[in-house]
Amino acid sequence: MHSVTFADINAARLRISNYIRTSDVITSSLLNKWLGHEVFFKTECLQRTGAFKLRGALNTLLRAKEQGMQIKRVVASSSGNHAQAVAYAASLFNIPTTIYSAQNISKIKAAATHSYGAELRLFPLREEADDAVAQAAKEPGALWIPPFNHPDVIAGQGTVTAEILEQTPEVNGIFMPCGGGGLASGSLLAARALSPNTKVIACEPLAGNDAAQSLRLGSIQRLVEPAKTLADGAATPAVGEYTYPLIQKLDGFYEVDETQIAYWTQWLQHLLKLHIEPTSAMSMHGVVNYLANCSSPQRVVVILSGGNIDTQKMQQIWQQDHLNNQPSLPSESLASVI
Amino acid sequence: MHSVTFADINAARLRISNYIRTSDVITSSLLNKWLGHEVFFKTECLQRTGAFKLRGALNTLLRAKEQGMQIKRVVASSSGNHAQAVAYAASLFNIPTTIYSAQNISKIKAAATHSYGAELRLFPLREEADDAVAQAAKEPGALWIPPFNHPDVIAGQGTVTAEILEQTPEVNGIFMPCGGGGLASGSLLAARALSPNTKVIACEPLAGNDAAQSLRLGSIQRLVEPAKTLADGAATPAVGEYTYPLIQKLDGFYEVDETQIAYWTQWLQHLLKLHIEPTSAMSMHGVVNYLANCSSPQRVVVILSGGNIDTQKMQQIWQQDHLNNQPSLPSESLASVI
Repeated sequence: MHSVTFADINAARLRISNYIRTSDVITSSLLNKWLGHEVFFKTECLQRTGAFKLRGALNTLLRAKEQGMQIKRVVASSSGNHAQAVAYAASLFNIPTTIYSAQNISKIKAAATHSYGAELRLFPLREEADDAVAQAAKEPGALWIPPFNHPDVIAGQGTVTAEILEQTPEVNGIFMPCGGGGLASGSLLAARALSPNTKVIACEPLAGNDAAQSLRLGSIQRLVEPAKTLADGAATPAVGEYTYPLIQKLDGFYEVDETQIAYWTQWLQHLLKLHIEPTSAMSMHGVVNYLANCSSPQRVVVILSGGNIDTQKMQQIWQQDHLNNQPSLPSESLASVI
Repeated sequence: MHSVTFADINAARLRISNYIRTSDVITSSLLNKWLGHEVFFKTECLQRTGAFKLRGALNTLLRAKEQGMQIKRVVASSSGNHAQAVAYAASLFNIPTTIYSAQNISKIKAAATHSYGAELRLFPLREEADDAVAQAAKEPGALWIPPFNHPDVIAGQGTVTAEILEQTPEVNGIFMPCGGGGLASGSLLAARALSPNTKVIACEPLAGNDAAQSLRLGSIQRLVEPAKTLADGAATPAVGEYTYPLIQKLDGFYEVDETQIAYWTQWLQHLLKLHIEPTSAMSMHGVVNYLANCSSPQRVVVILSGGNIDTQKMQQIWQQDHLNNQPSLPSESLASVI
């Protein structure tokens, strides 16, 4: 099994640089004032296709081409940001693409995937879609791009944190969501190489905490039922054999309940004026809990992983009013600003 | 009465350039594909304080300073983006600020205004707040910054369109919301000077269509009751004597119903991944109706005027699912992408 290295991330950066945006790092002076620390945000929600996932998909595709593979078809199974990323990446090279997905894929994500030119095959259950893509991958000339458990995908996702550490000096910590662990794994490798003192910390929905359970029990655990969470980008049933050993080396791991996810999604949309996925906003719970234990002002970066949200999720996020309780550190009582 | 000229807009650009962002102009390849035209978006929702209003407030404040005024206090009446803009602008120069507002100001906008250091005085009715600010403006050293009906405010808002026409070549049309008409007036002056063939078109909520009525009747009409609309930034009861003569020269004016406002707010938030105010998204109704009458592909720019939205408004926007009916020109039947 090939271990991913920082050299792979550097190679990925060169490989994908012509096709992706170097997303901005932004901040909110109001939030910083409230928290008493500096929080920066890497805006991968403004990445092409609306999520960081494009990086791993492109790196995998371009590396296969470099190695001389004559790709006749790209295949993937996903009902989320990975589907759109694969469809868009393949469309850049006019390679036919088939995405295998469960029938409960949202119409809007299906439309986006389709609009990039991909064929969409729907199955009653996710497991059936996974079986179908494994079959399709056996066809001659088929390139299967998995969502996280692949060295080239992990190296591609690691480019986010490599960029962050060039864009932002002296970062004390980087926070990100953990679904299958591709982003967390790549970020860990990039940070250890570029800034060994920077803490790398991941967050997962409590309602789908397979990674946290895996870390506690010392082996990969799998969710028995689909996770019901606003953070659908981190509802993956299990991490993989490539990502798990890297996730074990993280400096922190937080499990986040649904109220906190909705609370921070409202606040980040409001403060940053960006259409931020709950999966991305979730990391703020980790940030405030981490900062509560810091005695000196910190500079941390949150990876805003994506900006694709269903109508139903928007309704759930905004059904309660969280904006009248301003963000504060859990252990502190900040003076009200009003 | 001093008429605003393009020279005033140029002077405003120099004056405010150190304090504002030159906001990006962005586009959605998916939307362009669906519409068969190019639609660009000027992202003033990412301007400091979350709206273009900062430009007019800063221009007025800085010009007063240039003219030697010893400003002891800045005063304004507003319950929206103008309040935050004035509070922030004055805070840059450590000038005490009082904002006069109706008691129904949202807690979140009050908190933002307050966080910039302004004092907030609340009154049962908006008219009382307006009376109070007029009184306060009589104090020695008081600078009153009105929300739209002032030459320096109009010149400041005109800098948005001056930037657009430098950032985007060969623009056929520029679309914006019309509340009091400051943005539309300034945009008209900038466009006529820089690109005389560019159409300048404004949009107003049908539920608060005082400007459209004024244009039809040939004199300034005032709403009898407060407008109930999602587009709260354009709910102003009447245009002013500075803005009305300029609004009369616009190339088009659309009145937009609440369903269209919600529909386009959902679509723009989804496609552009930005937290866009209904007031800003409203312009898309004008765009598609305008484009339906064009026989050749057009390039138009929509000014995304702001990104400040109350929780209650977010609930209203997202209570129905509009994302399953993709944008299309009213007179055309586009093939479904799904």
